[in-house]
Amino acid sequence: MNFSMIRYTLGWLLIFEAVFFAVPLITAAVFLESAFFSFLLAAAISLGAGLILSFKKPKNTELYAKDGFVIVSLSWIVLSLFGAIPFMFTGSTVAFIDALFETVSGFTTTGASIFAAVENLPKSILMWRSFTHWIGGMGVLVFIMAFLPLSGGQNMHIMRAESPGPEVSKLVPRVKKTATILYIIYFVMTLIMFVILLFSGMNPFDAVNTSFATAGTGGFGFRNDSFASFAPIQQIIVTVFMLLFSINFNSYYLVLKLKFKDAINSEVKAFVFIVLAAITIITINISSMFESIWDALRHAAFNVASLISTTGFSTENFDLWPELSKTVLVIVMFIGACAGSTGGGIKVSRIIILFKGMGRELSTLVHPRQVKKITIDSRPVDREVVRSVNAYIVTFILIFVASLLAVSFENRDMVTNFTAVTATINNIGPGLGGVGPASNFAAFSPFSKLVLIFDMLAGRLELFPMLILFSPSTYKRS
Amino acid sequence: MNFSMIRYTLGWLLIFEAVFFAVPLITAAVFLESAFFSFLLAAAISLGAGLILSFKKPKNTELYAKDGFVIVSLSWIVLSLFGAIPFMFTGSTVAFIDALFETVSGFTTTGASIFAAVENLPKSILMWRSFTHWIGGMGVLVFIMAFLPLSGGQNMHIMRAESPGPEVSKLVPRVKKTATILYIIYFVMTLIMFVILLFSGMNPFDAVNTSFATAGTGGFGFRNDSFASFAPIQQIIVTVFMLLFSINFNSYYLVLKLKFKDAINSEVKAFVFIVLAAITIITINISSMFESIWDALRHAAFNVASLISTTGFSTENFDLWPELSKTVLVIVMFIGACAGSTGGGIKVSRIIILFKGMGRELSTLVHPRQVKKITIDSRPVDREVVRSVNAYIVTFILIFVASLLAVSFENRDMVTNFTAVTATINNIGPGLGGVGPASNFAAFSPFSKLVLIFDMLAGRLELFPMLILFSPSTYKRS
Repeated sequence: MNFSMIRYTLGWLLIFEAVFFAVPLITAAVFLESAFFSFLLAAAISLGAGLILSFKKPKNTELYAKDGFVIVSLSWIVLSLFGAIPFMFTGSTVAFIDALFETVSGFTTTGASIFAAVENLPKSILMWRSFTHWIGGMGVLVFIMAFLPLSGGQNMHIMRAESPGPEVSKLVPRVKKTATILYIIYFVMTLIMFVILLFSGMNPFDAVNTSFATAGTGGFGFRNDSFASFAPIQQIIVTVFMLLFSINFNSYYLVLKLKFKDAINSEVKAFVFIVLAAITIITINISSMFESIWDALRHAAFNVASLISTTGFSTENFDLWPELSKTVLVIVMFIGACAGSTGGGIKVSRIIILFKGMGRELSTLVHPRQVKKITIDSRPVDREVVRSVNAYIVTFILIFVASLLAVSFENRDMVTNFTAVTATINNIGPGLGGVGPASNFAAFSPFSKLVLIFDMLAGRLELFPMLILFSPSTYKRS
Repeated sequence: MNFSMIRYTLGWLLIFEAVFFAVPLITAAVFLESAFFSFLLAAAISLGAGLILSFKKPKNTELYAKDGFVIVSLSWIVLSLFGAIPFMFTGSTVAFIDALFETVSGFTTTGASIFAAVENLPKSILMWRSFTHWIGGMGVLVFIMAFLPLSGGQNMHIMRAESPGPEVSKLVPRVKKTATILYIIYFVMTLIMFVILLFSGMNPFDAVNTSFATAGTGGFGFRNDSFASFAPIQQIIVTVFMLLFSINFNSYYLVLKLKFKDAINSEVKAFVFIVLAAITIITINISSMFESIWDALRHAAFNVASLISTTGFSTENFDLWPELSKTVLVIVMFIGACAGSTGGGIKVSRIIILFKGMGRELSTLVHPRQVKKITIDSRPVDREVVRSVNAYIVTFILIFVASLLAVSFENRDMVTNFTAVTATINNIGPGLGGVGPASNFAAFSPFSKLVLIFDMLAGRLELFPMLILFSPSTYKRS
């Protein structure tokens, strides 16, 4: 284990975090909030700790696979620990576990909140919450590694550990350049959304928050009723962008390269199909609850887009919808977005690989002598990828069941427990029942909150880095 | 597709079913019930249909893998269709879908009932219900194939399709002899249980029913309160036997061969560990609900044994237990019994393989250059087995989710829908909420009942045969 390299990277991470605090600092300055000093102090602490840790450059900058996993998971924990400071200093939370829950929920782009009434919070705190979504959406470590004054070469381990989805495809040969392209796409799309929202009549503060939280598919609300009180046109804009940020960013690169056929791959097609199917079923199912079918359609589309993209905004308390609609919503929560997007969940490409694996098994049973390879978009899928997707699903189920069991020590109903774990491990935000859109996560015990914090981090980092961090065998000499 | 062989096998199956009706016939004769004539007529119809179908012996008796799957799944459907006749003739049910549901639930050893008050039913009908469990427990087709006047050799396909678990190990080189050994163990264990129950003071009718339903891990109750009103000692006897029938029958063969070390393999150890852990957690969790810790222990043990063995008897309405206990019960419902037992569920050996697969994935991530094979009991697990277990889990999830969606069209609460599918696909019987131990499945719509019938059959036949039966590609010429 290259401990000095871990220390060094964490140091740089904290220096970057100190810089990130500039966004809420500026917000506090604009709105003349006393929170300004809280953020200033938090930034100073981060910077100080960062400088101390990164002071001595490590001699050996080589990273092995396991170093990569440990760095990634530790980074996200440290980022959250320091990111939680302003919640304490501003008095927004009393218990540190709540501050940590909120920050982890932010960085992991979950959007599950412990606040009942967010409108009481300082605007700079709201901005910090949204901004953590934006930082977490694309992942911060790839960004930092790309710009660290190091030899590089081992960055692929980091990228693999931090990027969502079963496969990391480099757009261009160099990791640094691939990362740069993706960050530019992310930035420009966020900017476009912001401008469109301004044109729709939204004020700049709301537009920035909405853009950050949508781009990262986070979903922290900054109004008590999330998105219910916004104008229908604004809800529609957000619906479209939640879906756009759920699509593999590689597709946008391919569009820019005018390779339209490659851009619209099987995963995109499957994603569009699932979204349309879910919206259709729910629209019909809830139509009698609304004055017009168009209202039903708008709400169905918004909330399906919100949950499949794992954003977690809401325009309606879908916990009150009929059972069929709720079941469809829970299913799309698990499916999640496309790989290589900012969205969470199991990811559409994994679902495709699982389906194809099942088809191959059936075909092998019926024709035992036939050898069949799984292909996607006419390309064979590497056997290792299939195996790792299977391992992913099993690990997902295991963490899910263990978390469900841990959370059920508190005597809440099963739907609340089940969807609380669903909403955190898939980085969505709201669930059903006691954690529905009209509720929040404040009432859970500190123990349950720790479990859900683990789930949010595990979900965001694709499970394995968190398991590797806490597995004793990682630290054995081999 | 060898259609004449399918016809011929189904014919023999119905002849056997006519013979099976002898058990309720004798019961009706002993208790002087008018149901006697209903069973006589049902037997005559089965025999007639059977004779017609099996009249012409097929020239080509060769079976390919896909023929095996189609024969197995069709057999179970036909067996249930004819087995449902007495429910109609005796007037026990009005709707045929209810009669079919009850019979499928019987043969698949599920034990989910559409009857609210079973004590009103004729004793011969109760006996038929229990006897279907006993027939279904070990599987009828292997039995028939072993005694059919055919060349044999292709029976392995049938055995593989009908036996529970990821691997079918032949105890002795010949399938016929393996089957015979297993049936003898099954018969003798049932007999031992019957005798012990008689000694405990149970009347012969109750003892036969209990033995049949326990041996097949079925769980149809013949008292309105299932097992609540039986003496504690009788509950304890049933607890022990439910667990015994959940263990791979190969282990008993090995015990008889004095190979104790081989008999107590990893699966048995894991099963015992899970049972003890679940009983401990629940006993502590429910202790305040009972007068003494021993009562709590007895009820915890009975209901854990009942659900992990997928029997489905109950001594208590566990739907009223605290959430932690209910969550543990739902988890053991999914785990299920050992492979090669009469129990259902995912099976402990599959869970072990999944866990080991996850461990291997973690280890591969940490040490990318290391090649590691999965081993169980120091024997390497075939790569094909690992792959098929993964495909099994994915298929399980897919059927589960599709069923949940189908059942949620009726606007029942999510816990009821979720556990209704859980209880049928795992061949358990009761679930929670609207399908808890104090309720039944009568209120579901015919459509939902069809879905749950499919789930029971799919669960009993390890998913793939039912999918292959309904897959158009099966009938394409290759």
